[in-house]
Amino acid sequence: MTYYYNGFPQSEHDEKLNLINVDQLEEDAKRVIPEGAYYYIASGAENEWTWRNNTAAFNHYQIVPRALTDMEDPQLDTEFMGIKLKTPVMIAPIACHGIAHKDAEVATQKGAAAAGALFSSSTYANKSVEDIAAAAPDAPRFFQLYLSKDWNFNKMVFDAVKKAGYKAIMLTVDALVSGYREANLRTQFTYPVPLDFFNRYLGAKGEGQSVAQMYAASAQKIGPKDVARIKEESRPSYLY
Amino acid sequence: MTYYYNGFPQSEHDEKLNLINVDQLEEDAKRVIPEGAYYYIASGAENEWTWRNNTAAFNHYQIVPRALTDMEDPQLDTEFMGIKLKTPVMIAPIACHGIAHKDAEVATQKGAAAAGALFSSSTYANKSVEDIAAAAPDAPRFFQLYLSKDWNFNKMVFDAVKKAGYKAIMLTVDALVSGYREANLRTQFTYPVPLDFFNRYLGAKGEGQSVAQMYAASAQKIGPKDVARIKEESRPSYLY
Amino acid sequence: MTYYYNGFPQSEHDEKLNLINVDQLEEDAKRVIPEGAYYYIASGAENEWTWRNNTAAFNHYQIVPRALTDMEDPQLDTEFMGIKLKTPVMIAPIACHGIAHKDAEVATQKGAAAAGALFSSSTYANKSVEDIAAAAPDAPRFFQLYLSKDWNFNKMVFDAVKKAGYKAIMLTVDALVSGYREANLRTQFTYPVPLDFFNRYLGAKGEGQSVAQMYAASAQKIGPKDVARIKEESRPSYLY
Amino acid sequence: MTYYYNGFPQSEHDEKLNLINVDQLEEDAKRVIPEGAYYYIASGAENEWTWRNNTAAFNHYQIVPRALTDMEDPQLDTEFMGIKLKTPVMIAPIACHGIAHKDAEVATQKGAAAAGALFSSSTYANKSVEDIAAAAPDAPRFFQLYLSKDWNFNKMVFDAVKKAGYKAIMLTVDALVSGYREANLRTQFTYPVPLDFFNRYLGAKGEGQSVAQMYAASAQKIGPKDVARIKEESRPSYLY
Repeated sequence: MTYYYNGFPQSEHDEKLNLINVDQLEEDAKRVIPEGAYYYIASGAENEWTWRNNTAAFNHYQIVPRALTDMEDPQLDTEFMGIKLKTPVMIAPIACHGIAHKDAEVATQKGAAAAGALFSSSTYANKSVEDIAAAAPDAPRFFQLYLSKDWNFNKMVFDAVKKAGYKAIMLTVDALVSGYREANLRTQFTYPVPLDFFNRYLGAKGEGQSVAQMYAASAQKIGPKDVARIKEESRPSYLY
Repeated sequence: MTYYYNGFPQSEHDEKLNLINVDQLEEDAKRVIPEGAYYYIASGAENEWTWRNNTAAFNHYQIVPRALTDMEDPQLDTEFMGIKLKTPVMIAPIACHGIAHKDAEVATQKGAAAAGALFSSSTYANKSVEDIAAAAPDAPRFFQLYLSKDWNFNKMVFDAVKKAGYKAIMLTVDALVSGYREANLRTQFTYPVPLDFFNRYLGAKGEGQSVAQMYAASAQKIGPKDVARIKEESRPSYLY
Repeated sequence: MTYYYNGFPQSEHDEKLNLINVDQLEEDAKRVIPEGAYYYIASGAENEWTWRNNTAAFNHYQIVPRALTDMEDPQLDTEFMGIKLKTPVMIAPIACHGIAHKDAEVATQKGAAAAGALFSSSTYANKSVEDIAAAAPDAPRFFQLYLSKDWNFNKMVFDAVKKAGYKAIMLTVDALVSGYREANLRTQFTYPVPLDFFNRYLGAKGEGQSVAQMYAASAQKIGPKDVARIKEESRPSYLY
Repeated sequence: MTYYYNGFPQSEHDEKLNLINVDQLEEDAKRVIPEGAYYYIASGAENEWTWRNNTAAFNHYQIVPRALTDMEDPQLDTEFMGIKLKTPVMIAPIACHGIAHKDAEVATQKGAAAAGALFSSSTYANKSVEDIAAAAPDAPRFFQLYLSKDWNFNKMVFDAVKKAGYKAIMLTVDALVSGYREANLRTQFTYPVPLDFFNRYLGAKGEGQSVAQMYAASAQKIGPKDVARIKEESRPSYLY
């Protein structure tokens, strides 16, 4: 079934994926997600030279199996910054999961928790940090921060994520303005569904805004002093 | 002519191949072998990155000819572990030759013997080690072992291959579970024809099982002690 | 609207380009510029091996962003040979801009000035150095010189560019004859519109000549003494 | 016009080629030469890995132009083993030019002489060494030798090429048997027109033979003693 938000078709459909690999998932997704939204997920900046070269470089990290180790049933569980994980996988912070499904980050958090992976939530999530946390109360999660020019907004964010039990704040320092994402320009992409923090604080829902417009609200000038101030004002509970 | 085993079409056809190179043989085979069975032979694990890179790396071993050597009619015969071979080629152990022809490993052993190559027979062969040996009594051959969790099964295997005159046991240590073979998953491949050792010992013929199910009967925990025990229990006749 | 010069269609159309990247501009241009003229702009010498390898090599100069620099609104303005530029971009000297638009180098100079880039004008420009200068009197510009066999022609050129306020002369030393441009040979390209200096001095307008014919008027023998003589005879005003 | 020799169409057509590059010539030739004959010229051994890699490696020898050399009208004339050449190009020895044109090596020698290049003639030429020499009496040329098992044949060849004024004998030492040329196997290529030396000496014309059959008459066992004997028996005139 498909739900329409201001004309944007959002899937409400739930079924087990017959998933063989990620490339095939990308092809399958392309058939069901509107073009502009699909490329918001699946494209990179400029002519994607860096993206392609990153992928090629990553493929050269080879997993070399060992033999005759006298070991049965190897486990993938690990520990990251004191957090126990069943699998060494972290869901990177990605804006606006609502493009792919109406349950947005709530659904992704549930899946991550089921797999024992670490979830991380973007400042530009559709769902509230409280709803995401409630989806899997015992699972660990991080919060990704686009620092705002407005420290009142920042403080409100810190308080909300602390209260919701997020384990850490990940500060974005290499994307202070939007990348020159050519596929988004070609499709004239704007966020089709509301983003929680914008709705809550700015009275603007976020949807209908381009990526570049969203970034305009963020701080472009970030230095070591800002990091110190974030640390001070957020006082992450796990440090005390 | 084609024979049908439980609906799976098995060639009974014999003719001299007009074979120019191996790539062309692969194309020709694709036209006559059912899709799932074809990809059991012709595909690799995951997205085949390792397979492609292995092939590329292998191509860099260059055969550099020498000139003015005053030599006529060079011979390719060589010796491998004390075994004289007319050609430095070994048929790698491959499961279930019956996919390609009803005579399965019996036919492959005949061809290998005619070419003076060393044949090696998989634990998952369709034909019995005795029938394979009878196909070319004087030709050398090895046996590939997926160690079973059940040492009674292992002992039965050792006795059978020794009695059949196999020269060596090749222990598989790097494939204790099935590879994530995407092409097999896509075609939902199961072994279409019976495998001798499963039929003989387990009362299960093996056909209708997926590759993953087959591996489940194998030992996943293998270490140096297992190697020593295999050596002791198999007591290869050529060492005495 | 399109203007016809001796049958060659020259665009008079002005509109803001909806430009996403340069590759797309190249595709768009291919649709509106006649084939021979398009390849005069878009092709390289021989089988374009050097061109492709230059592009690949250039892509390996990577722009690595820094983070946490406490800097806002970074500026691209720079200084090149004492000339202040708003952007570190220089328009390379290219012959015969009239292929792309009737306003030719006058339009390119206006665009370069608007962007704060350095313009450079080819000896084979369609427009006069005076008209180009008048298009953006305060903008900096260089003049590219194909040295003529005829020093009277050269002196005339020096005087004209000095009077028009050009800041420097760029001497071409690596293209004393035309490159073997295969695409131009295939389309039998000749300059379709007049080139100012040929018109002014030689009484020949230049159009209807092949690239090879144009080069025949240039000096093929150039050495350090010619560089000294150019320096002496041109006495660039910014040195005094 | 086309001449037919035993059903093989041989061009008698002469016209100036509108030749832009060698790749285009190869495409043009493919349209007029029968398939098997075309691939005799245009294919390599095995799966052409070495051929492709040789071409790629050769492309890395870069011709780097110098500038400001004060030189006009550079000349390409050079000297190779005491022979003056107008151009540093040598026509490699290739069998059976008659595939491409009825005038065969006589025409190629004329073209090489006109360009000032060094021609070299294969043992498997269609035309006699005397006719090739007569086509350009003053031009330099070499003779390529597939050494025969029969030294009477070899002596006859030496005497003929010396008398015809060939400057050197090039001994093939790295192709004592035919390469595994897959394209020739696929098209079942046999020489379609007579080869002079086979006609003259063996009473067999050579046509209708496969490349492998031709090589069978050659010596496969060649060492330093053979080189010395060739030197002694051929006594190249330019050494005395």
